[in-house]
Amino acid sequence: MERIDLLVTGIGRLVTPQGNAPRCGQQMKELCEITDAAIAILAGRIVLFGPAQEILDGLAAVEISETIDVGGRMVTPGLVDPHTHLVHGGSREHELALKRSGVPYLEILAQGGGILSTVRCTRAACEQDLYVKALRSLNEMLLNGVTTVEAKSGYGLTVEDELKQLRVAKRLNDTHPVDIVSTFMGAHAVPPEFKGHTEAFVDHIVNEMLPKVAEEKLAVFCDVFCEQGIFSVEQSRRILLAGKHGGLIPKIHADEIEPLGGAELAGEVGAISAEHLLAATDKGLAAMAKHGVIPVLLPGTSFNLGLAKHARARDMIDRFELPVALSTDYNPGSCPTESIQLIMMLASLNLKMTPEEILTACTINAANALGRGEDIGSIEVGKLADLTIFDAPNIAYLPYHFGTNHTFGVIKNGHVIVWNRAIVYTEASKEGAEL
Amino acid sequence: MERIDLLVTGIGRLVTPQGNAPRCGQQMKELCEITDAAIAILAGRIVLFGPAQEILDGLAAVEISETIDVGGRMVTPGLVDPHTHLVHGGSREHELALKRSGVPYLEILAQGGGILSTVRCTRAACEQDLYVKALRSLNEMLLNGVTTVEAKSGYGLTVEDELKQLRVAKRLNDTHPVDIVSTFMGAHAVPPEFKGHTEAFVDHIVNEMLPKVAEEKLAVFCDVFCEQGIFSVEQSRRILLAGKHGGLIPKIHADEIEPLGGAELAGEVGAISAEHLLAATDKGLAAMAKHGVIPVLLPGTSFNLGLAKHARARDMIDRFELPVALSTDYNPGSCPTESIQLIMMLASLNLKMTPEEILTACTINAANALGRGEDIGSIEVGKLADLTIFDAPNIAYLPYHFGTNHTFGVIKNGHVIVWNRAIVYTEASKEGAEL
Ligand SMILES: [Zn+2]
Ligand SMILES: [Zn+2]
Repeated sequence: MERIDLLVTGIGRLVTPQGNAPRCGQQMKELCEITDAAIAILAGRIVLFGPAQEILDGLAAVEISETIDVGGRMVTPGLVDPHTHLVHGGSREHELALKRSGVPYLEILAQGGGILSTVRCTRAACEQDLYVKALRSLNEMLLNGVTTVEAKSGYGLTVEDELKQLRVAKRLNDTHPVDIVSTFMGAHAVPPEFKGHTEAFVDHIVNEMLPKVAEEKLAVFCDVFCEQGIFSVEQSRRILLAGKHGGLIPKIHADEIEPLGGAELAGEVGAISAEHLLAATDKGLAAMAKHGVIPVLLPGTSFNLGLAKHARARDMIDRFELPVALSTDYNPGSCPTESIQLIMMLASLNLKMTPEEILTACTINAANALGRGEDIGSIEVGKLADLTIFDAPNIAYLPYHFGTNHTFGVIKNGHVIVWNRAIVYTEASKEGAEL
Repeated sequence: MERIDLLVTGIGRLVTPQGNAPRCGQQMKELCEITDAAIAILAGRIVLFGPAQEILDGLAAVEISETIDVGGRMVTPGLVDPHTHLVHGGSREHELALKRSGVPYLEILAQGGGILSTVRCTRAACEQDLYVKALRSLNEMLLNGVTTVEAKSGYGLTVEDELKQLRVAKRLNDTHPVDIVSTFMGAHAVPPEFKGHTEAFVDHIVNEMLPKVAEEKLAVFCDVFCEQGIFSVEQSRRILLAGKHGGLIPKIHADEIEPLGGAELAGEVGAISAEHLLAATDKGLAAMAKHGVIPVLLPGTSFNLGLAKHARARDMIDRFELPVALSTDYNPGSCPTESIQLIMMLASLNLKMTPEEILTACTINAANALGRGEDIGSIEVGKLADLTIFDAPNIAYLPYHFGTNHTFGVIKNGHVIVWNRAIVYTEASKEGAEL
């Protein structure tokens, strides 16, 4: 090594899971912690990290283009949010009063509200409007310390409107420093024009939507809302297998309300992840463990819906040795929040996860839920230099001191893109980014 | 009027309760809303507000020193946080694992944790350390849109350490643009050196602490933690009456866990407010209504403690016509959050309050809980020009889109002190403020 681009010093505490693979069960508690650390970066990747003195000694004869001092703060891998509905039109605050007063969701839906309201707004919006709205949320995520985000379609529900959502996600990925990984989710709901004809809509997804999405290479994953009264296990299987045939890796919204067998299906079709899982059975969790499916838990959603029931994170970790990941589920209905840090608190409060498990769930396990464990999710030589700098003394402070944003700075691909709680990114990050 | 100092234009939506008095029961739903509004400010106070065209016509012949355009955003009165334990030493994230795994609070206390840990840290800290830590939290509150904050002592529990906390609050009030209203709360817990001798500690509070606090004019209010096993109704009465005798207005932490009769005592001693009230009885609420006591509800605390039980806000508003106020209860144990906006969401989710009620509770009712209804809490001619500018289309958006900070700007005493989500305050706000 003759040169490094960026040396990050003054790291009071470096905390990271290790390796590329999902961390299962008790491994989720094992973190590497280094006090007074430094990280050396070349060409956007980590080339050295460790105790500051050791690193500095090792770099004695090396040219260092730039050094930044993070002032004794804590540094972790950049956070990964592996389940969001980032791109959509409209917001649904007008339904709040109905929702909070206990009006059943199906009644709100019957009034043209709920997801159908977002479908209407998304269809009516042009790409530019969707882009501007999603950009604002993406910046909020970035300010919270997130460096990679998954984004699902599923509010268009026509060929053109699904492609529109996915194109906006692609444009965000092309122009914004945060990486976007896209998921096609035409099977999010049955649109009004197919009401009562779910099977015909499944045909439409399989025959019309999926080929286009695959052809234009607009998504990496295919997701289905497998739930009583939405898409059955059989319909979900059909869609996920058709997606797989077209090169899209299966994901599945599974067993959120009823134990329908979505977790079992996830194992069967080789899904990379299964989401929600509040009602998943032991049999379902065992199937997931057997087939290496990552459970992506969304405690913000059960919280915002006022549910007394939560996903069985302790069972998943302790009994089934599953590699739990966490996510915001950011969406305009059940979980309008971009804050992964509030999710951390809810994971502590309602899922009884420890701070170590929470960090692992938001980094290496989330990265693996996106198939990106080789590149991101831990501070590791050879990985992308995606780092979050926290104004917090230790990782327990993140779920403890809640409701505020502890991110001081963010480094993405070796570039400082957030500093002193403000976005500062320049041409260096990705060309043409509009703020 | 020949001149105005500041004209605020481009207000897409101005929303405010009206008047100086607490808004009771159904009045909490009645807000004044003006779309496309403007506000004129002179010498730190509001001199005109209304539809923009009307205001501009009225100012045709008037010299305007400065105009700012808030870009179509929503403007409300500056938010008021009427119950915080702002000044204290240390944090308690190391207790999180114990707490979440269900270890009873009394056991954590027996291990030297809980409030006694904060008492130790507060006693050990010098004024400067306490100031720096509290300043950081105060800035966080300001960035959230709060312009007036109550701050309690109660982690010193010796004469000198209680005075130390109150002096830090005074220094914050003197140097920071946000107004701090101080409360003496020597009766927050029984310190180790008085263990088993609560009565002797009450003597100490009444005979040693209260006279000093009154003499140095370090507090406006006197508060007591009236609870089973902490301070009895009789002890609380004695302290509050002694405080009243010394010129301190009573407040009371009442009926948080057991229906001990704290709400009734609040009525009896003429407390300005009673706090928590999860276990308050109908009789207690009726006593509060009869004597004009403001219920200050703290949904962040019950949330963070994982309680299934919440304060009966709907009964308070609908049946007892009480003027409910909301607050963070910011403290290092039961509620480590400065975010009044998350409190708004929790008031919607768990207290079933409407957006209109929530805004009223965080403005005029909170102002009245601090005896400041004449000066703050509504956009009103003659009141201080304390305004919060939100990046949100309407007030329902605040409890709907949760976990992030929607405050774009803050005007305090007619000075812009937060803009584009950053603190920008200058000499104009208060002299000598250190950031
Ligand atoms: Zn989802
Ligand atoms: Zn309190």
